[in-house]
Amino acid sequence: MSISASGEVAGRAVQRVPVDLGERSYEVVIGQGVLDDPSAWRSAVTDGTAMVVTNTTVAALFLKRLEQTLLRRHRLVHSVVLPDGEQHKDWTTLSQIFDALLQWQCDRDTTIYALGGGVVGDMAGFAAACFMRGVSYVQLPTTLLAQVDSSVGGKTAINHPLGKNMIGAFHQPRIVVCDIDTLSTLPDRELRAGLAEIIKYGPIADWAFFEWLERHAENLLARQPRALMHAVQRSCEIKAEVVARDEREGGLRAILNFGHTFGHAIEAGVGFGAWLHGEAVAAGMVLAASLSERMGLADGEVSVRLVKLLARCELPIRAPALPVERYLQLMRLDKKARGGDIRFTLLDGRGRAVVRSANDALVREVLADLATGS
Amino acid sequence: MSISASGEVAGRAVQRVPVDLGERSYEVVIGQGVLDDPSAWRSAVTDGTAMVVTNTTVAALFLKRLEQTLLRRHRLVHSVVLPDGEQHKDWTTLSQIFDALLQWQCDRDTTIYALGGGVVGDMAGFAAACFMRGVSYVQLPTTLLAQVDSSVGGKTAINHPLGKNMIGAFHQPRIVVCDIDTLSTLPDRELRAGLAEIIKYGPIADWAFFEWLERHAENLLARQPRALMHAVQRSCEIKAEVVARDEREGGLRAILNFGHTFGHAIEAGVGFGAWLHGEAVAAGMVLAASLSERMGLADGEVSVRLVKLLARCELPIRAPALPVERYLQLMRLDKKARGGDIRFTLLDGRGRAVVRSANDALVREVLADLATGS
Repeated sequence: MSISASGEVAGRAVQRVPVDLGERSYEVVIGQGVLDDPSAWRSAVTDGTAMVVTNTTVAALFLKRLEQTLLRRHRLVHSVVLPDGEQHKDWTTLSQIFDALLQWQCDRDTTIYALGGGVVGDMAGFAAACFMRGVSYVQLPTTLLAQVDSSVGGKTAINHPLGKNMIGAFHQPRIVVCDIDTLSTLPDRELRAGLAEIIKYGPIADWAFFEWLERHAENLLARQPRALMHAVQRSCEIKAEVVARDEREGGLRAILNFGHTFGHAIEAGVGFGAWLHGEAVAAGMVLAASLSERMGLADGEVSVRLVKLLARCELPIRAPALPVERYLQLMRLDKKARGGDIRFTLLDGRGRAVVRSANDALVREVLADLATGS
Repeated sequence: MSISASGEVAGRAVQRVPVDLGERSYEVVIGQGVLDDPSAWRSAVTDGTAMVVTNTTVAALFLKRLEQTLLRRHRLVHSVVLPDGEQHKDWTTLSQIFDALLQWQCDRDTTIYALGGGVVGDMAGFAAACFMRGVSYVQLPTTLLAQVDSSVGGKTAINHPLGKNMIGAFHQPRIVVCDIDTLSTLPDRELRAGLAEIIKYGPIADWAFFEWLERHAENLLARQPRALMHAVQRSCEIKAEVVARDEREGGLRAILNFGHTFGHAIEAGVGFGAWLHGEAVAAGMVLAASLSERMGLADGEVSVRLVKLLARCELPIRAPALPVERYLQLMRLDKKARGGDIRFTLLDGRGRAVVRSANDALVREVLADLATGS
């Protein structure tokens, strides 16, 4: 169980969620304005050069502030600003990071700071994993999705034309710093996509948290800092606990993929970028919950309440109406598939998940019934 | 201490050197004809798909044989043949491996087999480190240099236009299989370059082995299998012991870089490819031994005997006559340099090494006296 510590820094509430991974342990620090306050990040970062990796959109909002903060910890602070968007999560863009590191003569004592959403975090983290066979990095997620999911756990990757996240590494950050204030500039659609990943944690790990979300959905949509703090904290606690027990996705960690087997197929089926990841996961969770129900693992009320909550958050609850066989084909290509066998994360009661294969006929039935959206 | 086990497989002598790295432990299997005999490789390789990575030169010699051997262990065996040469150790060539893996729908149960020299091993190993965030791989080194050095220890990398081996990973193989018979087709110059890395182990770790090499240099140059077996085995034992104590090059492992700080500068200074790595290391060891002597760490006889042995092996003992300041500039760019401080592996008596900074004036003196070759 991950026990969070509460505290105050400069009069503001700061939550600290430990990620317990032996010598690779670190903290997720959650608070308002923590981007400006390096004293809130108690972590073992060397005094070598800092290299900030961000994108054009985030740079305009937060880069100067972060550089000011980092100059209180590092003698030299450089930055590299990447183009914004999942379509740039490839080798060409990654090599911009390596070029910058080498042009500035960075060495093994360099710390990379990933300032941005999941794409920036994935690329900066993978660059840190590979540069001189591994340097330290810090995650500073500025989207809700990155704060509650991608920035915690050390998964890094780039895409390959033949598959998403196919080339990557497990490389844990030294610390994750979630500044809740950065969410105030997030477009509504991205905020909702982040809520999908938050909602995910309820059915798979903590039904009481799901019920809290049912009571506080409107507060979250209105971006109330207290509600966001709690949602981010509880999500990170659950993720930290799962990752601590299965760092390299040998088994348990796959429960975090609830909605993702269907979701990845949706993203690929409509063409990457058309649906946000969180949107695809939302519709994917509806399919996975229905499959769980048809396999006798979860009761019907779980599906009903999940659909209701997702709809209140204006998330898609109907997967697109692609041919059923196309879904199956895409799911067999997923990197969690083994020997062509599709693996689903299914709900096993309330607040519990299992990873299973499913009967193809049942999967076809679920898709035929529910993948009817636009 | 790494204790090797001797045994026989199909009537032939097989040596097994353990590399003790906890859950990442593996064996180096050394013998004649072991490429054809999977029973000699007792290792936990999954029964998923096999992907052989090799180059055009090695494919012509050994690929068919290896594929036959692997079909006794794997249901599906694919291969990807890369262009030959260090100049291809880059992202473009690496992506050929990823393309092949994805085109053949390889998954996390795939095992990659690196058949070739150090370049193939580095690229196949790095591809294994990154593909789906890490799959298993097996090293099948076919050059003397790869058998005694690069295939053991899990260092993998590709080059960047601004530096060698700048992008890579620590990723241990499941087993290393050294078939001494493959050395019979090796060009003389490459055999000698491999001898340089073998000779390196004596002064830094085992003076008795150095004296054995003094007695058996001609047998090695004549490619006597018994002599080669012993030289490969003892080299792998020493490397295994160092790697077991310092897997990620935190300290001790740097003693393996004896001759390499100067050597890398030689390779870069003359333009990569003009000197073989082992040749540059040979001349680099002469410089490093002289520096050790001038710093009062080693006696003059060590230098004299080292130069004599290298010369008998027809290895260069004079570094090229580049400007002294050019050497210093290149060495400051080395990825072992920290904050501009050049680190040297120096001899500390006989069979012992230390890693130290050195006075720039002394380094200049050594270069001015000894870097006078063509």
